[in-house]
Amino acid sequence: MALMETAATMMFTDCSSPSSSTARLLHFTSCNVQKFPNTIYHSLRSNTLQFGISNPKFPKTIISRCSSSSPSAVQVTTEASATIIDGKRVAKDIREEVAVNISRMKDNIGIVPGLAVILVGDRKDSATYVRNKKKACDSVGINSYEIRLPEDCTEEEVLNHISKFNDDPSVHGILVQLPLPSQMNEQNVLNAVCIEKDVDGFHPLNIGRLAMRGREPSFVPCTPKGCIELLHRYDIPIKGKRAVVIGRSNIVGMPAALLLQREDATVSIVHSRTKNPEEITKQADIIISAVGQPNMVKGSWVKPGAVIIDVGINPVEDPESSKGYRLVGDVCYEEAKNIASAITPVPGGVGPMTIAMLLSNTLLSAKRIHNFS
Amino acid sequence: MALMETAATMMFTDCSSPSSSTARLLHFTSCNVQKFPNTIYHSLRSNTLQFGISNPKFPKTIISRCSSSSPSAVQVTTEASATIIDGKRVAKDIREEVAVNISRMKDNIGIVPGLAVILVGDRKDSATYVRNKKKACDSVGINSYEIRLPEDCTEEEVLNHISKFNDDPSVHGILVQLPLPSQMNEQNVLNAVCIEKDVDGFHPLNIGRLAMRGREPSFVPCTPKGCIELLHRYDIPIKGKRAVVIGRSNIVGMPAALLLQREDATVSIVHSRTKNPEEITKQADIIISAVGQPNMVKGSWVKPGAVIIDVGINPVEDPESSKGYRLVGDVCYEEAKNIASAITPVPGGVGPMTIAMLLSNTLLSAKRIHNFS
Repeated sequence: MALMETAATMMFTDCSSPSSSTARLLHFTSCNVQKFPNTIYHSLRSNTLQFGISNPKFPKTIISRCSSSSPSAVQVTTEASATIIDGKRVAKDIREEVAVNISRMKDNIGIVPGLAVILVGDRKDSATYVRNKKKACDSVGINSYEIRLPEDCTEEEVLNHISKFNDDPSVHGILVQLPLPSQMNEQNVLNAVCIEKDVDGFHPLNIGRLAMRGREPSFVPCTPKGCIELLHRYDIPIKGKRAVVIGRSNIVGMPAALLLQREDATVSIVHSRTKNPEEITKQADIIISAVGQPNMVKGSWVKPGAVIIDVGINPVEDPESSKGYRLVGDVCYEEAKNIASAITPVPGGVGPMTIAMLLSNTLLSAKRIHNFS
Repeated sequence: MALMETAATMMFTDCSSPSSSTARLLHFTSCNVQKFPNTIYHSLRSNTLQFGISNPKFPKTIISRCSSSSPSAVQVTTEASATIIDGKRVAKDIREEVAVNISRMKDNIGIVPGLAVILVGDRKDSATYVRNKKKACDSVGINSYEIRLPEDCTEEEVLNHISKFNDDPSVHGILVQLPLPSQMNEQNVLNAVCIEKDVDGFHPLNIGRLAMRGREPSFVPCTPKGCIELLHRYDIPIKGKRAVVIGRSNIVGMPAALLLQREDATVSIVHSRTKNPEEITKQADIIISAVGQPNMVKGSWVKPGAVIIDVGINPVEDPESSKGYRLVGDVCYEEAKNIASAITPVPGGVGPMTIAMLLSNTLLSAKRIHNFS
């Protein structure tokens, strides 16, 4: 994937990385840096998580050009900056709230929520995600159970483990780390997780309930739930607003659109077949982008005062970084932050919210199963 | 409901009439005719189904004002007319295709598809819908089974009948005529219909699969399926087009939006909380309107050349009609037909498609259950 400079009739791929809601895989993206000879590149390492208006890493004089529409792209850096939606802080708050609730639950009814994770094969990225989930569970007091199966195990073995976890009263949430090896039918495996423990919210019955008025899903998928939670925590009104979701993946774009509609936004969904997507995004009061295309959404795509939730986490080549890459969102942050009224940074925006929502869903499941409020 | 003249920040209700997909209830709407002193009203009776560009009932000289933006509304009647999408003819074609398939199935494997309908209470409109479905089944060779239960029967009785039909191999489709009496939980009742016989396509599992990429619903709800079928039969391209669905009901608007998205349209959903809906509809290549508001969509809401599928069937007072009312759509037909490139009339547009799709879904179910292609 190369960073694209032209916007008209742009083709892009959906952010449908083969991952569970808590795993947004880090596919390495080659950024054609030669195309930007005048650009000074930031070094955004994955551990550089402190963002904010006064962030010393983003002095106003640094020019970070994402767009080929050069003069305005440079000029906008002198304008007022957006509120930076600090997903890291919000996620921390949510974890603390979850921890308090878990402690209260344990004290009152002696129940500790449990999350089971099934990991098949030895993909490094998957192992990292599972480790992070385990650490997050530990930090809030959720018991975590992990099953590791070899790459060549059968679908039946996975289904057997799911079945055991479905019946295990100490387990309140079940995750199957995706992607699964090719010999397995992902749909069969995910459908086997009982709806009451589907804390990822990926079961079609959950999605159906999410889509239908008057119905309530058992669980809302973690990443889109995190996006909406950020809007709520920053008191950003949704009702009656024009919202555009970029990307229609099952795990982010589609459920995000359904959630926005449940909150009475007027929603448009832009995707790889959309002609002139910028014409639609420019009308949006709220943009949620989840396509996995670095810097695709230029400043010129954004209506002044819009709110931007950037779900993309795209590594692009960066010879100045010790890792050789840096992470950028779907949105050209440096341009958009001077046009939007609020924006999530990458990293430190939506990213930390996904696991926070997973913990929250696991707590919700335990509360529901044990009728504890 | 009064016919509204102003468009800005218009509030409207969704066409979520408490009906099964095959029952769009005829709620009587009082049309404030005094507001249109200069208007000559047509008499559109429910049996006046022949529409077409050369229809003598629509001489070009008759002025039918739906809008308060008077001069242009009058002028447009001199412009070229849209293709009239003849739903009655298409529905007839589909019924004939279904009949041929049923005959072939009977000859080859000796199976006759069966549709079971459960009607609770004695609502006149519901009885009419059920009678029409039975007649339609008879006409194509589907066996129909009908259970009539008294208004004061219990939910358990209804569930028992559903359970029997679920197990009955001669029944391939089950419909519960809505609305149900208030003592029953509609959700419980509809969820009891097994997914393999849910020819209405209303089960949340079906809706979830409809929403998800890479999944296939067992059945698509009949009315929205009929809308898309009309587009297909008239060779109207959907892929890459801007589509606007007006209304977000579970039975029409929401599934219609999901279907358009599956066909790679860029979809926006306009609803009662949308500010300035006309700004969005004016961008649409395809409009599907399903709100149940007579003449809400004015000519000024329509982009020249757009295709309009009007799902609304709204009775409005008409003292010149022997019935005292006439039927109109959500779209101001007389204005829109001179701006759109194609439009469905009301009646005779989407209306006849619903039962045709129900027959088609019942055939599909029987074919699937008996593995017949």
